[in-house]
Amino acid sequence: MYASILAGGSGTRLWPLSTQETPKQFLRLMSDRTMLQETVERVAPFVTPDDLYVVTFAQYRQLVAEQLPALPADHILAEPLGRGTAASIGLAATLIAARAPTAVMGSFHADAAIADVEGFRQALTFAEQVAREGYLVTLGITPTYAETGYGYIQAGQPLMTSGELTAYTVSRFVEKPKREVAEEYLRAGHYSWNSGIFVWRVDRILEEMRRHVPQIADVLDEIGAAARQTGGRMTAEVERVMERAWQRLTENVTIDVGIMERADRIAVIPISVGWNDVGSWAQVATLHPCDDAGNTLVGISVEQHLSVRTGDTLVFSTTGRRVATAGVEGLVIVDTPDGVLVCTKEHAQLVKELAEQAKQRQSG
Amino acid sequence: MYASILAGGSGTRLWPLSTQETPKQFLRLMSDRTMLQETVERVAPFVTPDDLYVVTFAQYRQLVAEQLPALPADHILAEPLGRGTAASIGLAATLIAARAPTAVMGSFHADAAIADVEGFRQALTFAEQVAREGYLVTLGITPTYAETGYGYIQAGQPLMTSGELTAYTVSRFVEKPKREVAEEYLRAGHYSWNSGIFVWRVDRILEEMRRHVPQIADVLDEIGAAARQTGGRMTAEVERVMERAWQRLTENVTIDVGIMERADRIAVIPISVGWNDVGSWAQVATLHPCDDAGNTLVGISVEQHLSVRTGDTLVFSTTGRRVATAGVEGLVIVDTPDGVLVCTKEHAQLVKELAEQAKQRQSG
Repeated sequence: MYASILAGGSGTRLWPLSTQETPKQFLRLMSDRTMLQETVERVAPFVTPDDLYVVTFAQYRQLVAEQLPALPADHILAEPLGRGTAASIGLAATLIAARAPTAVMGSFHADAAIADVEGFRQALTFAEQVAREGYLVTLGITPTYAETGYGYIQAGQPLMTSGELTAYTVSRFVEKPKREVAEEYLRAGHYSWNSGIFVWRVDRILEEMRRHVPQIADVLDEIGAAARQTGGRMTAEVERVMERAWQRLTENVTIDVGIMERADRIAVIPISVGWNDVGSWAQVATLHPCDDAGNTLVGISVEQHLSVRTGDTLVFSTTGRRVATAGVEGLVIVDTPDGVLVCTKEHAQLVKELAEQAKQRQSG
Repeated sequence: MYASILAGGSGTRLWPLSTQETPKQFLRLMSDRTMLQETVERVAPFVTPDDLYVVTFAQYRQLVAEQLPALPADHILAEPLGRGTAASIGLAATLIAARAPTAVMGSFHADAAIADVEGFRQALTFAEQVAREGYLVTLGITPTYAETGYGYIQAGQPLMTSGELTAYTVSRFVEKPKREVAEEYLRAGHYSWNSGIFVWRVDRILEEMRRHVPQIADVLDEIGAAARQTGGRMTAEVERVMERAWQRLTENVTIDVGIMERADRIAVIPISVGWNDVGSWAQVATLHPCDDAGNTLVGISVEQHLSVRTGDTLVFSTTGRRVATAGVEGLVIVDTPDGVLVCTKEHAQLVKELAEQAKQRQSG
């Protein structure tokens, strides 16, 4: 199997650790490996570094190269401009197709966590089988609560089964729902979260791109013609072609809206593998074990955390300094060399606004 | 007027800023002057540095000398052992009496804040008059809420009046009351908080010490005999006498329990001058202006504080680092070079326990 890993995000919901200079995928949030390294490690039994492409931007090229030393330098695809995930994934599919026109590829985000790696790999094995039949397969995450921040996928009829896994046709994709609607989906039981993990044959996805996003398909065709000369490597010559062709992309199109909501032969495989998009500090807390009081320490030893009547609190530190807490509940405390963040888990999404303030003051 | 300033406390309720090495009285909590410097400044119109004694311990001698460069070195009285405020104040009274046997002295804690300095000085002027009549005068603080952490003084009959100030006999001293009792005192209206600010003639206080705490009086007599040879200066010779005599003090006795609760001719002057013993980080917040949301920034500029939905929160910094807050209410955040403290104002008293933990880990 081939793979594309999307590593161009610049989310700031984990500010001040995650910044535009070093976004989430390049951070050590779960272990001593970065999110990007964990993502590569997770698919390693299926995809060798030679069959892996990382789609990112020029400013992160160096970080990717440092964190993935086994990855060939010309497998780092630096998009000239962000034009949405349809173009990003299409770019990787095009380079892969230049090497193996009917290969199966998986597409993964570099900044999600998965607790049950074995379960995920089983699902990937099955997804590959379904993809070989010509389906555009998406791994849907069985919801554990009524999240309103994700898109949902409604499963239709069963298509194929393997062990406990079943692939279904897709009735529809739903954008982020209201709370009551999300609760209804949770009760209904045949809805999955849209994780953005896809498996398909490159010829099938490029065929659907030609049909639904012809502007992107034209650009990719041009890049593909150049890439066939290099055996699917992003050489300087292919990069020049891309730089030029990419200018013709006039809109941002996501793979979901551009392709998945409109294409034929879509399948969803619902899985329960402890997937987490680590979209807030509150979610970072859930990736780590907590003590009896519900407190989670990351990057700081028990000795360096002094506490009295403290519960359900995440202390995340990259400084080695002491952090003391008293009488607090449900907090997030992040200590970095630049400063300290204190917020409630409940309002962890507000961190985005703090990052925005920080950016404005920097430029102001 | 002469004065003693008690600067030997080693409170840790303002940890991690206040430590045993640098306790509260030596910190800049209100302004660019330390609490000790503010205390001296407050009584400056009444007491010149030559008539001022600072009672402390050897480990703080250097800090006192640095912070009060005008104070004669031999007016720093370093107690060999902490034996309670009766001995501390008695020591200062003894040195003053060696110079001027019937002088009036005031005794002040080095670690309290007073907002209305002019009002305080008026009260001090009046207290001096009352003290000249032979009364042991205590300045009582008119309570503004039902505090359970202070002792209370019940006023009896009016003795003397000056402008809006009245000196009363004292019906009784009450130790820290329960909440319902404190509320009752607040309603009753003739109770004051015991601030520990006293004004009296040195002969009167030493006479009462002789009567009620003879062990202390014996020790002071011995020191007094030596001090009369030096004109009330704590020379090396007087210090040797003190070091030896002090060993005979076998108990800790406070001025309140040892003298005030038992002596004759006690007077209280209730005052409302914005007194604050700065006994917790929550109280530090009240010493500074706050913004419309109730947030107080000390040592950190508005530019360095990023915030979204933050209210009633104190950010106190000595690092110059950025502090960001989101979705928090009623918090105290203290950022020091050693680490960061996060607690609720409501539970600010728990900081004492954190300091205790810190101490244990250091020694463990």
